Amino acid sequence: MSYIVKKKIATATKELMSVKPFSQLSVTTIMAEAHLRRQTFYDYFEDKYAVLAWIYNDDIQAIIKDNLDYEHWTVVLHHMLHYFQANQAFYQKALAIHDQNAPEQAISEHITQLIERVLTEFSHKENVKLSPAYRDFLQKILTASLVSELRQWIMSPTPRPLDLETKYLQTFLEDMTNGVVLRHQHDPRYLHQPFPHANPPTGFPNQ
Amino acid sequence: MSYIVKKKIATATKELMSVKPFSQLSVTTIMAEAHLRRQTFYDYFEDKYAVLAWIYNDDIQAIIKDNLDYEHWTVVLHHMLHYFQANQAFYQKALAIHDQNAPEQAISEHITQLIERVLTEFSHKENVKLSPAYRDFLQKILTASLVSELRQWIMSPTPRPLDLETKYLQTFLEDMTNGVVLRHQHDPRYLHQPFPHANPPTGFPNQ
Repeated sequence: MSYIVKKKIATATKELMSVKPFSQLSVTTIMAEAHLRRQTFYDYFEDKYAVLAWIYNDDIQAIIKDNLDYEHWTVVLHHMLHYFQANQAFYQKALAIHDQNAPEQAISEHITQLIERVLTEFSHKENVKLSPAYRDFLQKILTASLVSELRQWIMSPTPRPLDLETKYLQTFLEDMTNGVVLRHQHDPRYLHQPFPHANPPTGFPNQ
Repeated sequence: MSYIVKKKIATATKELMSVKPFSQLSVTTIMAEAHLRRQTFYDYFEDKYAVLAWIYNDDIQAIIKDNLDYEHWTVVLHHMLHYFQANQAFYQKALAIHDQNAPEQAISEHITQLIERVLTEFSHKENVKLSPAYRDFLQKILTASLVSELRQWIMSPTPRPLDLETKYLQTFLEDMTNGVVLRHQHDPRYLHQPFPHANPPTGFPNQ
């Protein structure tokens, strides 16, 4: 019951955001659009920002978490991009709102599960044992890179076509994992510079 | 002459930020610290935020741009991390200020030159021709991932040691470029899933 009411409020908010700026939405206009009593709003949400946060979580969870168990991550990635394209106007407005409930954070929490799947798949298939510390680093940096790229793609006035964007992101992730495999196999073709440990040069900016 | 005065004002601002919050700094306190007439400030900067932006640019340019011509990018990467470690307290405060002159943007503009060098080096050495569109994508996403990781590292109360962080970032970039090379050589060991172009499933969240 709670979920159905929340979904109604969320749908009404999305509808309204397609015709007017978020700053012009009030609890009154949202609940009128949802055909619900104004006071009911506060049984479910603290304010209109909380509705946005709920939308990101609910939608993106439906695409990523609920699909990762029976779809390959490449398919989930494609679905996710399709979702953002279909909701581009909504996310353009949402991403432009500067506040604490930034959609990046909600998106990030779900994308990290997708990345987790990417890392588990290749390390299992190729029997590559990443150290827990490096795996943690890799999961974070890949999550951040996907979130950042998605933001650019959503905000772009001339975004790349859906299939091309999917292909680029999949290639990016596959190039990375193939590089990791090659390195772990100690392949002589793996190109690598020694790590520098020299002291910094004199005249080095410092405080 | 102009540069020397700016540098004095910048140094005074950095000094003050090591002892008090940025919100408590005024043009008066900055210029007193710099032993300069208060009014002189406005010949060089619009406000105290402009001083921060100037510091990011001046320092990071001295490390990245001015060194990339005669040092390998792995050395420049190491110097850059050393700089952020030495200035960690300053950047922790700077990154916490929410305003338009976010340090991420200044950092990003210089890091993109480092990434440019990474891409040029391996594509030249291995004779890999990236399409201009994919190269542009790769430069942007790698720049964003480094900026994001640096932010995490700077803000962390328990950051990884300098040499380990350098090693992780270098490995991340080298794994990526090695993956690109393997793919371009059409190596049969390159692991790749076909790109999905299926229609999204029914019940797909949409607006």
